[in-house]
Amino acid sequence: MRDVHVVFQIDINCDMGESFGAYLIGCDHEVIKHISSANVACGFHAGDPLVMRQTIRLAKSNNVAVGAHPGFPDLLGFGRRNMTLTREEARNYVTYQVGALRALCDSEGIQLQHVKPHGALYNMAVEDPDLAGAIVESVKDFRQELILVVLANSKMQKVAEEAGLKVAREAFADRAYNPNGTLVSRRVPGAVLSDVNQIGDRVIKMVKESKAFSVDGKTVELGRVESICVHGDNPEAVKIASTISTALMKEGVQVRPMAEFL
Amino acid sequence: MRDVHVVFQIDINCDMGESFGAYLIGCDHEVIKHISSANVACGFHAGDPLVMRQTIRLAKSNNVAVGAHPGFPDLLGFGRRNMTLTREEARNYVTYQVGALRALCDSEGIQLQHVKPHGALYNMAVEDPDLAGAIVESVKDFRQELILVVLANSKMQKVAEEAGLKVAREAFADRAYNPNGTLVSRRVPGAVLSDVNQIGDRVIKMVKESKAFSVDGKTVELGRVESICVHGDNPEAVKIASTISTALMKEGVQVRPMAEFL
Amino acid sequence: MRDVHVVFQIDINCDMGESFGAYLIGCDHEVIKHISSANVACGFHAGDPLVMRQTIRLAKSNNVAVGAHPGFPDLLGFGRRNMTLTREEARNYVTYQVGALRALCDSEGIQLQHVKPHGALYNMAVEDPDLAGAIVESVKDFRQELILVVLANSKMQKVAEEAGLKVAREAFADRAYNPNGTLVSRRVPGAVLSDVNQIGDRVIKMVKESKAFSVDGKTVELGRVESICVHGDNPEAVKIASTISTALMKEGVQVRPMAEFL
Amino acid sequence: MRDVHVVFQIDINCDMGESFGAYLIGCDHEVIKHISSANVACGFHAGDPLVMRQTIRLAKSNNVAVGAHPGFPDLLGFGRRNMTLTREEARNYVTYQVGALRALCDSEGIQLQHVKPHGALYNMAVEDPDLAGAIVESVKDFRQELILVVLANSKMQKVAEEAGLKVAREAFADRAYNPNGTLVSRRVPGAVLSDVNQIGDRVIKMVKESKAFSVDGKTVELGRVESICVHGDNPEAVKIASTISTALMKEGVQVRPMAEFL
Repeated sequence: MRDVHVVFQIDINCDMGESFGAYLIGCDHEVIKHISSANVACGFHAGDPLVMRQTIRLAKSNNVAVGAHPGFPDLLGFGRRNMTLTREEARNYVTYQVGALRALCDSEGIQLQHVKPHGALYNMAVEDPDLAGAIVESVKDFRQELILVVLANSKMQKVAEEAGLKVAREAFADRAYNPNGTLVSRRVPGAVLSDVNQIGDRVIKMVKESKAFSVDGKTVELGRVESICVHGDNPEAVKIASTISTALMKEGVQVRPMAEFL
Repeated sequence: MRDVHVVFQIDINCDMGESFGAYLIGCDHEVIKHISSANVACGFHAGDPLVMRQTIRLAKSNNVAVGAHPGFPDLLGFGRRNMTLTREEARNYVTYQVGALRALCDSEGIQLQHVKPHGALYNMAVEDPDLAGAIVESVKDFRQELILVVLANSKMQKVAEEAGLKVAREAFADRAYNPNGTLVSRRVPGAVLSDVNQIGDRVIKMVKESKAFSVDGKTVELGRVESICVHGDNPEAVKIASTISTALMKEGVQVRPMAEFL
Repeated sequence: MRDVHVVFQIDINCDMGESFGAYLIGCDHEVIKHISSANVACGFHAGDPLVMRQTIRLAKSNNVAVGAHPGFPDLLGFGRRNMTLTREEARNYVTYQVGALRALCDSEGIQLQHVKPHGALYNMAVEDPDLAGAIVESVKDFRQELILVVLANSKMQKVAEEAGLKVAREAFADRAYNPNGTLVSRRVPGAVLSDVNQIGDRVIKMVKESKAFSVDGKTVELGRVESICVHGDNPEAVKIASTISTALMKEGVQVRPMAEFL
Repeated sequence: MRDVHVVFQIDINCDMGESFGAYLIGCDHEVIKHISSANVACGFHAGDPLVMRQTIRLAKSNNVAVGAHPGFPDLLGFGRRNMTLTREEARNYVTYQVGALRALCDSEGIQLQHVKPHGALYNMAVEDPDLAGAIVESVKDFRQELILVVLANSKMQKVAEEAGLKVAREAFADRAYNPNGTLVSRRVPGAVLSDVNQIGDRVIKMVKESKAFSVDGKTVELGRVESICVHGDNPEAVKIASTISTALMKEGVQVRPMAEFL
């Protein structure tokens, strides 16, 4: 009998480049050390052309892959407020933002790896096949090996896969899951976890067993997960990112940009 | 003695796609019939992602080439107010806007032909080598046969040519020229011409003799001109565009997108 | 037996001042002749400080009263797209906009008469007591005889009246009503009427009998109505406004600013 | 011979409320302890309606007077970039912003004390009588005892005084002065001072002797000064604010809101 040795590979992604003009936000220079893919804001919900270029440079010098992080045109709400767009609006807003970032990537000599919608655009697309379809249509337009990051086991994943898109399924190590596999709303107490040991255990389970713990104490099947989302908007979040990255490496899981193993 | 037959070729360019959301501006559907290149607004001074795509489609179906028309981030001032940007700001604002439009061109299956800065960005760059340099740097970044439209005989032309950029030198048939070859400020009475016969004569002189009439009644050497700029923001402007296009064709001048003969 | 003679009084309101910078929209100079109250956009969904002052002057010189027309911070969507704001956001966005307009009214020597929310803010508030409450709270803050315009028979009317606010109940002569008294969504064919004779008859019924025709052919009780909303965004709309105003005056109904009889 | 005892009174003002949505900037909660007047951003260059109300509350609970801090419509540039506005644009942009803040002050039950233009609007107005005139015109419109804060000894001061406006002349304890009394540009090394002892000495000289040290080592006559501007955008700035406030109080100078002694 042969000795089977499975090598687990995972990507860690984080939102970055969300500063705007004189406004600084996020601990990009810290968190960049613990991730393999950066979701770079594109100027609608956050970010500006200068910040975008600086963030691309930061990622490049840390061997971190770059993705576009398009959001709603709502800087005042940081893209976190639901907006009812038509399908055509959503599609073109995404293409515009991804195209702008891709041009800056070209200029810095790196290839754009992925697209991950931001905030309310992501949350609405997870549940709304029509909005997800608009995003999928936009990503397909780029006619290259652009990966769409989707919530593992969501309607958005289904829409993207049916359209033949290359997807990366992501899970959240510091977020509570509902029994049906969706994320517990941030407005519910306990939706966001902060115990680093607990988070470390959860992420290993997600990556090795494709399972999350749900709020009712049972386990939820997530299916295969290719990326773990971490946050970097405050020093505490950076600590969690570091915990996750360390826990994965200790377990022998290889942390690499999603494009390298998808 | 041989009979020498020179074929004159010229491009006619016009700003387009400057509507924004519910706000409609310009007579794009009329003026498109009289031009060969469309300068499409990119969302900073005017235009939005939907309007951009619709304008690309309009141009494509009329065999009109598409260029990017980046402007200052000043929708309220329609990009016509001077702003003091740093060189890095200017460069990245241009790359962002051109990249966004290029992505929409890709999606519609056409190639982006040129870049022409808008309003105050253009006027300031004509006089300011540093700002012109920022724009040139951005256009070079696109690593393709992207043409920069410059005012014939300006500092901006010089900066672009020294950087090895492919340029199209443009002249204005409906604008008065100063003796030194710059345009008379719009604030000066008589800066904008409206007599269609006079405009028709002027454009022939510009294209065939590389000369403009200056406000002091003398002629100004413009050097070779590859594009004539027309306006399409009101029915009167459309009439002038039509006059120019008709006058050129009557004289046997071929009106074609700049990329076809540059 | 005494001869009872009832004098009917009604206000006609219309959205105005929705131009923005170089972008002109609406037929304000035409429609102003047929109305008694102008809802002036306040810079969030439309309008800008210059347009606001010019619109106040236009209203003043036509003896038309001025109200604030606050909207969502969504110029790109003209305030017509639903946005999920917190109650505090909604309240402060309204106070900000109304305060800005009031200052310009002060400067032009006229008193601000009313507040009427715009587009999606209005439509959402009609159904959502919490959002309506935020608007009511803001209007109360102005500590003067500021009137809130509400859809007749709506939840918004109820919230405003319970808070002790002075309200003007409005009806739409050119919109179809559902059997329950709400407006038929604009997305439904037939939601917006265009037959001027039909509109003339409807408005008389609204004002004299407090009734509207519903889409199922029956009549809906609207309750007392103090203002009729007309539109002025295109020449056809101006014709309808003129029809309504003429029909009312022919029937002996006095058209006056709401503050004069409320 | 009588013993003459002069009581010096001075105001200390600081820019505040410059956060925007999710973007936090400034150390408002620290610096508020060391000042007597807050210049509250009004949503154009920084600030938003919620932040404005929160800042008014913060000022009120610290017995600090509130002023409006209008800026250019350039959030991306934080209002620090020169823009060429027409006089009418400038006037109405100021009225709009001051009106919005005044409404929030009304709602919180406090009176608006002053107006101080921000960043490039301030710097341009200091040198440009036409722009200063537009601001003055706007402040006069408010028909109340609104004070305009001006750079001591500037053209802006002259324009305001000639128009009969109540002015507060301000000086900068942590900025280097040119021999002609203007501020050394921030782009010049040494323009911003950081030695707290030196700053403490300078502010006493400004308040008690109406003099500043110029960069050539000589003293410049500032004329009477009623307010000292301090910064609060970083912990170091807060330390300077504290130094200035402490130095003044040690010397027996009373630190009070400008309206109390003007």
